[in-house]
Amino acid sequence: MPNTLSPSELSAALAWRYATKKFDTRRLPASAWEALAASLVLAPSSFGLQPWRFLVVENPQLRARLREHSWNQSQVTDASHLVVFLRRASTGEAEVNRHIARIGEVRGVPLEKLEAYRQLMVANVAQGKSAEVQREWAARQVYIALGQFMAAAAAMGIDTCPLEGIDPARYDEILGLAGSGHETVVACAAGYRAADDAYAQAAKVRYPAGEVLRTV
Amino acid sequence: MPNTLSPSELSAALAWRYATKKFDTRRLPASAWEALAASLVLAPSSFGLQPWRFLVVENPQLRARLREHSWNQSQVTDASHLVVFLRRASTGEAEVNRHIARIGEVRGVPLEKLEAYRQLMVANVAQGKSAEVQREWAARQVYIALGQFMAAAAAMGIDTCPLEGIDPARYDEILGLAGSGHETVVACAAGYRAADDAYAQAAKVRYPAGEVLRTV
Repeated sequence: MPNTLSPSELSAALAWRYATKKFDTRRLPASAWEALAASLVLAPSSFGLQPWRFLVVENPQLRARLREHSWNQSQVTDASHLVVFLRRASTGEAEVNRHIARIGEVRGVPLEKLEAYRQLMVANVAQGKSAEVQREWAARQVYIALGQFMAAAAAMGIDTCPLEGIDPARYDEILGLAGSGHETVVACAAGYRAADDAYAQAAKVRYPAGEVLRTV
Repeated sequence: MPNTLSPSELSAALAWRYATKKFDTRRLPASAWEALAASLVLAPSSFGLQPWRFLVVENPQLRARLREHSWNQSQVTDASHLVVFLRRASTGEAEVNRHIARIGEVRGVPLEKLEAYRQLMVANVAQGKSAEVQREWAARQVYIALGQFMAAAAAMGIDTCPLEGIDPARYDEILGLAGSGHETVVACAAGYRAADDAYAQAAKVRYPAGEVLRTV
C-alpha cells in the first residue's frame, strides 16, 4: 500500500481547503500538476465508461474571454491552472464497444469473454437511458472527477475553486467544442491562495454533523 | 498548512484505489471513519448550500433488504460502512434563509450584510432553477461529495466501492424517507478489500491521458 495520510491529517487537509477567491501568480510545479492530471484520468466512473474530457486552458486570451462568461471571477484568469470539465454528449453502442475494446487491450482479455458485460452496458446505458437522462448521467460522472480533483489537491496542499457560475454554452463556443461530441459542464481553478485572500480565514460554514449525517 | 502527500504519493494512492468488489469483514477504526464522515460534512457545494444528507446504514437487516435492490452486490452487506447519499428534493427560499442564518451564526455576521448574497442565491437557485433542474443540481452536488469521499478514503488507504446500480425508489421506501424532503441518489461502501478480490490485481482501464486530457 502507498504512503497515506492519517485520519487526523486527512481531516485537517479537508478543513484547510476552501473555495479560493484570490489566487496568487505562483505556478504549480510540474510534478504537482501531473498528479492533479492523474486524479482526473484515474477518476472513477459508471462502468468505467469515462464519459468525459478535461480541457486545461493555458492560453491567456482564452482565459480572458472565458472570464467574461464566469461572473468575471478572477480565478479564471489568475490561477495557475484552469480545467474545464466536459461531458460526452452521448454514449451509444459505439462508445460501449470502444470501452470494451480498451478493456480487452489493457487486460489482455478476449472480447468474447467481455460480451456479457458489453450487453449489460448497452442495455443499461446506451439503450436504457433516454438522451436527456444520459446527459445528466454523464454530468454526474464529471462531478465525481471534480470531487476527486479538489480532494486530491487538498491532500497535496494545493488550492482550488470550483466554478459553477459559468455559461456552458458560451464556454463551448469559445473553446470550439461544436462537433466534438463534448460539452462544458463545470470548471475548476487550481493553484495557490493569495496571502491576502480574506476568505482563507473565514470560518467554514456547515450544518452540524449530527444533522447532515445520520446513522440507521 | 497540514501534512500532505507528495505528488507521487497522491498518484500512487489514486492508482491503488479501485471499485472494490469483495470486502473482508474488518471494521474501520473509529478514527478512520470519523475522518471519512468529515470528508462528507466538509464537501464543497454550490454556494455552500449543502443540498444533501448522508445516511450511514449500520442495521444488518436494512443492509440485507437494500442489497436486494442493488443487483445483489455483496458490498452492500459486507463492507465495514455503507453510506447512502441523499439529495434535498428542493431548495426554496426557506432553505436559502436557513443557510444565511447559519452563515451569520458561524461567522458572527449581521444578516443585513448577507442580504445581497441571500438574494443572489434566491435568484439563482430557489427561483432561478425549475424543480427538475434543481433536483439534478442537487444530485450533482451529491456527486462532489461522493468524489471527495472516495479520494479521501484512498488517501488514507481505505477501500470504497461506488454503487450506482441501486433502485433509488426502493431505497427511499426501505429507509423510510417519504416526507423527509430527501431522496436517494447513490451509495458507497467503505472498508477493506478482501485478500482474494481478483479485481484488486486487474490493470486499471483508462483511455490514454493524451486523449482525455487536452491543453488549449
